[in-house]
Amino acid sequence: MKGVHLFVVGVYLLFSCRAEEGLNFPTYDGKDRVVSLTEKNFKQISKKYDLLCLYYHEPVSSDKVAQKQFQMKEIVLELVAQVLEHKDIGFMMVDAKKEAKLAKKLGFDEEGSLYILKGDRTIEFDGEFAADVLVEFILDLIEDPVEVINNKLEVQAFERIEDQIKLIGFFKSEDSEYYKAFEEAAEHFQPYIKFFATFDKSVAKKLSLKMNEVDFYEPFMDEPIPIPDKPHTEEELVEFVKEHQRPTLRRLRPEDMFETWEDDLNGIHIVAFAERSDPDGYEFLEILKQVARDNTDNPDLSIVWIDPDDFPLLVAYWEKTFKIDLFKPQIGVVNVTDADSVWMEISDDDDLPTAEELEDWIEDVLSGKINTEDDDNDDDDDDDDNDDNDDNSDEDNDSDDDDDDDDDE
Amino acid sequence: MKGVHLFVVGVYLLFSCRAEEGLNFPTYDGKDRVVSLTEKNFKQISKKYDLLCLYYHEPVSSDKVAQKQFQMKEIVLELVAQVLEHKDIGFMMVDAKKEAKLAKKLGFDEEGSLYILKGDRTIEFDGEFAADVLVEFILDLIEDPVEVINNKLEVQAFERIEDQIKLIGFFKSEDSEYYKAFEEAAEHFQPYIKFFATFDKSVAKKLSLKMNEVDFYEPFMDEPIPIPDKPHTEEELVEFVKEHQRPTLRRLRPEDMFETWEDDLNGIHIVAFAERSDPDGYEFLEILKQVARDNTDNPDLSIVWIDPDDFPLLVAYWEKTFKIDLFKPQIGVVNVTDADSVWMEISDDDDLPTAEELEDWIEDVLSGKINTEDDDNDDDDDDDDNDDNDDNSDEDNDSDDDDDDDDDE
Repeated sequence: MKGVHLFVVGVYLLFSCRAEEGLNFPTYDGKDRVVSLTEKNFKQISKKYDLLCLYYHEPVSSDKVAQKQFQMKEIVLELVAQVLEHKDIGFMMVDAKKEAKLAKKLGFDEEGSLYILKGDRTIEFDGEFAADVLVEFILDLIEDPVEVINNKLEVQAFERIEDQIKLIGFFKSEDSEYYKAFEEAAEHFQPYIKFFATFDKSVAKKLSLKMNEVDFYEPFMDEPIPIPDKPHTEEELVEFVKEHQRPTLRRLRPEDMFETWEDDLNGIHIVAFAERSDPDGYEFLEILKQVARDNTDNPDLSIVWIDPDDFPLLVAYWEKTFKIDLFKPQIGVVNVTDADSVWMEISDDDDLPTAEELEDWIEDVLSGKINTEDDDNDDDDDDDDNDDNDDNSDEDNDSDDDDDDDDDE
Repeated sequence: MKGVHLFVVGVYLLFSCRAEEGLNFPTYDGKDRVVSLTEKNFKQISKKYDLLCLYYHEPVSSDKVAQKQFQMKEIVLELVAQVLEHKDIGFMMVDAKKEAKLAKKLGFDEEGSLYILKGDRTIEFDGEFAADVLVEFILDLIEDPVEVINNKLEVQAFERIEDQIKLIGFFKSEDSEYYKAFEEAAEHFQPYIKFFATFDKSVAKKLSLKMNEVDFYEPFMDEPIPIPDKPHTEEELVEFVKEHQRPTLRRLRPEDMFETWEDDLNGIHIVAFAERSDPDGYEFLEILKQVARDNTDNPDLSIVWIDPDDFPLLVAYWEKTFKIDLFKPQIGVVNVTDADSVWMEISDDDDLPTAEELEDWIEDVLSGKINTEDDDNDDDDDDDDNDDNDDNSDEDNDSDDDDDDDDDE
């Protein structure tokens, strides 16, 4: 884009003045690779590339801050375009006002979104707008939509994936019409949901798969759900996945964090912070998994698990916004409209709540007994020195601790 | 730093114009938090903060590119300082020329390095100079140096950590003098090497630890090495870790990638690319682990494992520099002076080499039979369309395939 490099040529000239070679981070070279879309160049460009990335933006205003934000997005895209230069991907900016007609035709409706066109599919990227996240997202998109599992070690690899939705099917061969339907279905969800397949009898046996069976694995559940009425058409598979897309426990991922956050339940999220690489965090996550397994049939429950390690830049912001200490595990309710929140009292990370205690607390959240509005006044007498201004004196409901004996299984 | 915000106020004004709250990425607010060090302000500032981050840089030259690079580092530091504002950490720039005397006193010797002062320790950061990596590094530094393992679930968490060095000790209590020595030793390696301890008999039994025993775990090895001659002083522990710090198989990590890369063996690295979340990559890593276990006593062998997922921005650079396809596993030898490299031929990712084949290949590398100089002419007849200019006609040694029968165990 003209103008961008006048502003910050070399902002991405990153730090690689070393005597050794082999680890040179890319440096934005100031070359314009992202072009503005017009009805004229669109046809030409879409023929040229297999994959198109289109940033759909509101008209650039005269406001200085908005301009800077826009330029920053341009630079991120330019860097991504440069890094992926030899992968044959087209990058374009789409002005929502100037190109309203074309945007409508392409089905773009959310300004500020990045859309990726691959064949006749449109994929919306709704994650962290950072060069590394975007590059990984796009690389995942140009891989095969289905991973084939050939042997026991690869079954292990498949089984280790527990924190995201996955599907696996057993088919006769790559030429099977049912495998082809499965592959087509996979493309609807690539790269957000992983599809696996096997053509190997011993692999199928290990995973208890019958011919043409497709199993759906909810995150963190031990047992898969076989999709009923095999064999399946593409449409049946797509419909099933869409229906089961919101799990009981889901990990917040940089590549679709905003989409997950927008998928709230009645304006709130139950949010759990746990650092998996930390013993306390691991322990807390294991307890959460237990709770999720016990309550997998409850459609009103979807806990968002956040591993602070995935979002270093947000840790301090969350600590401040939610008034919590993220060096230890936390679980709370967050109102997504104003980020008001209330958190379970975990006095000591050596004494985490049991699965039962967590379930009682969650039940109180779902019934509304614990909610973000009642708790604007702290109900415990901790002497924290927060400079907390909204500490006004509502009635103290003390909703955390009392009256939790209606579920004493 | 004065001037920085004139240049790019708002460059880090990131993209958070959403209706929902709770995921707002920090935006550089243009406020100067990073100060220039002088002999005068150093005393004052070092009293004020528990932790000091000092970026030790060569004098800013009149060269435009160098200036931009310097400004970019300043902005990264400003953003880190802003994000960690309430954590009470001081950020400073140290001009190598102007403050030569003080720098010498502080023991700074590598221009372009970031040094962190914590108490009387100096920690050098030699990783990816990006805000998220730096923030995570600093947060890890202000945690306790030793993690305490209290129960079975936490033992599981401990056991799951396999891709980095870890130590664990069993002590009577927090007041034990041997625990205190262990804690002091941990501070020497924080946050690069993780130290764990337990005071719980059943945990100790599960890990086969005797009182005051400290076990050292090399990455990817099943069995730990008990550090001899317990109980240990701080110095004994530090010495032992330093001696065993280079493992047979090590993961390249953003937080110390340059340090790892500089720790080459005779100017080369054996580098393996494997994406752990991918079935083929997982399988290849398992084979590598087997090779590492079989050869853990060979001091000349240290394979650098790179998971491309950890470095999205480098994937395309590596593919271009090394002329390989990173959608599948790869292993090769890289000359760190010029990034010249030669890669094992893996024709199909469904047919990965066995541990034995890998060992034969590695033996050929260590003996010099396979090396980066002989292979400047491709020894297979692939018809790739690289615009490769250095395809000059040296003798073709074909060193990959012949003569590998001297190690037929």
